[in-house]
Amino acid sequence: MFIMKKTICGARVKMGILGDKTRRGTGELTRMATAISSAPSPTGGKQSQLEVIDCDIHNIIPSNETLYKYLPERWRRHHQRFGLRGHLGGYYPRALMNAARHDAWPPSGLPAGSDLEFMREQLLDAYDIRYGILNCLYGAGGQLNLEYGAALARAINDWQIAEWLEPEPRLRASIVVPYEDGDLAAQEIDRVGGHPGFVQVLLLVRTNEPLGRPRYRKIYQAALRRQLPVGIHFGGAGAGPITGAGWPSHYIEDHGGMPQAFQAQVISLVCEGVFEQFPSLKVALIEGGFAWLAPLMWRLDHCWRKLSEEIPALRHPPSTYIRRHFWFTSQPMEEPPQPRYFRQLLEQMDTDDRMMFATDYPHWDFDSPESALPAGLALELKKKIMSENARGLYGLD
Amino acid sequence: MFIMKKTICGARVKMGILGDKTRRGTGELTRMATAISSAPSPTGGKQSQLEVIDCDIHNIIPSNETLYKYLPERWRRHHQRFGLRGHLGGYYPRALMNAARHDAWPPSGLPAGSDLEFMREQLLDAYDIRYGILNCLYGAGGQLNLEYGAALARAINDWQIAEWLEPEPRLRASIVVPYEDGDLAAQEIDRVGGHPGFVQVLLLVRTNEPLGRPRYRKIYQAALRRQLPVGIHFGGAGAGPITGAGWPSHYIEDHGGMPQAFQAQVISLVCEGVFEQFPSLKVALIEGGFAWLAPLMWRLDHCWRKLSEEIPALRHPPSTYIRRHFWFTSQPMEEPPQPRYFRQLLEQMDTDDRMMFATDYPHWDFDSPESALPAGLALELKKKIMSENARGLYGLD
Repeated sequence: MFIMKKTICGARVKMGILGDKTRRGTGELTRMATAISSAPSPTGGKQSQLEVIDCDIHNIIPSNETLYKYLPERWRRHHQRFGLRGHLGGYYPRALMNAARHDAWPPSGLPAGSDLEFMREQLLDAYDIRYGILNCLYGAGGQLNLEYGAALARAINDWQIAEWLEPEPRLRASIVVPYEDGDLAAQEIDRVGGHPGFVQVLLLVRTNEPLGRPRYRKIYQAALRRQLPVGIHFGGAGAGPITGAGWPSHYIEDHGGMPQAFQAQVISLVCEGVFEQFPSLKVALIEGGFAWLAPLMWRLDHCWRKLSEEIPALRHPPSTYIRRHFWFTSQPMEEPPQPRYFRQLLEQMDTDDRMMFATDYPHWDFDSPESALPAGLALELKKKIMSENARGLYGLD
Repeated sequence: MFIMKKTICGARVKMGILGDKTRRGTGELTRMATAISSAPSPTGGKQSQLEVIDCDIHNIIPSNETLYKYLPERWRRHHQRFGLRGHLGGYYPRALMNAARHDAWPPSGLPAGSDLEFMREQLLDAYDIRYGILNCLYGAGGQLNLEYGAALARAINDWQIAEWLEPEPRLRASIVVPYEDGDLAAQEIDRVGGHPGFVQVLLLVRTNEPLGRPRYRKIYQAALRRQLPVGIHFGGAGAGPITGAGWPSHYIEDHGGMPQAFQAQVISLVCEGVFEQFPSLKVALIEGGFAWLAPLMWRLDHCWRKLSEEIPALRHPPSTYIRRHFWFTSQPMEEPPQPRYFRQLLEQMDTDDRMMFATDYPHWDFDSPESALPAGLALELKKKIMSENARGLYGLD
């Protein structure tokens, strides 16, 4: 017997969902999940009357049986006998299960996020969402066995085409890639990137090396061949501790500290000159917040004025590349206690054009389109955040 | 022959200064150092008329001969034959030498930061500094050989008493401790903490584990026995890569990314309940910036509302502990391009009482008391930042 560890968000969860379709959490363990996962009912309130594009929806493969429909025999056997093996990383709390809202488990008995019909009802229809971007976090990208990761990525993308994109015209998806191998990742982008349902290449934020390093360049090249942005999502597990000061003890530290990895990636992509090499590359930072961004720009610009000789490829201050090349999703926002702080943050970032709404459905920290934004924002700004900025980035009609 | 690597700021520099008193950088290598290290002459301008307490001055042991006066024979032999050995960490750029301003190398031929007479002239007298806090960054704290690190710490602290604190009443110092061993560190705090010149216990920010972990608690206990705050300074080298996404390629990424480690430490100290165990513990974050703090508080509070069950020791939201227990130094500030952003940051942090001025003398990124703060701050706020907040924290008359 081999122990099969399950990966969600690139993090191993001790209670997996694959191959155990009926596990929905009972007793002790679900109390926390219940406590933290009450989603408000849609009310048809004011904000929901704006058009909504949801930039972060998580679809889940319901079972190994479904996976095997898309996985060749060679890798099916590997998956059965060895299963997922990545670097150690964060673990979801046991009670969070599948990291899903308690009410997101569909009546069909399938895991949360795996039942299209229920997602339509609970998310797309309920909030009248014009488009939603699927980011499947199965963990293919972080596999140590790179060929196996590539096979999983192909299976997941074929499954996304057949069971999500073709049946539901409101959905778009990110291409899952084995991102620790630039060649294999580029092959997968070339293979499926022509499908109109794919609007992004998906990486997780904790990688083995910072994403500006040369090993990842072929991913950006391939994304540009397909005119796709690259999305970097919360999660994953790098080759070392999850902070620069070692392993923290708690999940709340892992979750609360995730912006550190986003900061490392922004710094790396800019300082390595990736945007000089690929001037039209666009990068969406998904589920990493954004309030840390302006201070990072100021600090980097200050460093650059004194240390630019180390990175001569950069012709502009780092903040120039950051403002040109990065987009951000709203969930989770850092949720300042005063609404005016939110406007201050946007002013400090010096752009209204990069923030995009996301629900993170069906995860426990779901943001409703009706209450995600602070009160008092101008209608034009709300429109940009709720749909227009995403429409532009993802080339939606 | 053993290769002796030198440690400054817990970082190995390839061109060391110990045992090579005359090395001051010539030719090619000094051009960058010169370019980046022009310090403005003091002008006796408006801001300098405020009383100034400088919370971050770096004194340097001038030579191994000096060190040996304070190091017992057993460890002197060890130092001669083995030398410093820590985890791998960031390296200063070769051209930065000693990380010092080019003009901070004294005429005596001693390394920058090692000549008290010259420091008096160039810093204390020139800017009429009322008090200055010495933070000696020799690297004792990060030694793999803990007993050797403890011996170095004892030598450095005795040297600080004899050659800095006793001759110069304007100077105070931080106690250097072998912080990866709680017992040894506590012994050193108990040994010298009664000397009135010591006003703080010094740690570096990249540690082997996050500072909330139990191994470090005895340091806080000992600091409180001596009624001393704990200072966490830029630098050091943990047991893993310096980011949660692996090793970046450049020094600018190391330097620009240092706030990530500060964020990890704030998260850890708060979430581990250190301030519930030690309600009167005070922590100064030195050379780590502060503009990232308000977003971190918002994010942590949001996490805590949903995950407080994981850390039941916390009776308040994380931001409450952060506002009560942390102080910050001004150098380097994130230097927002608009002065009003600085006021926004202070408003978002919701305190004027925690920011403290520092020059970082004699390092290359020196901030002059005359130009460190953005224009347009109220006089009362300037007074707090330039001296009053530090006076309170460090118990200066």
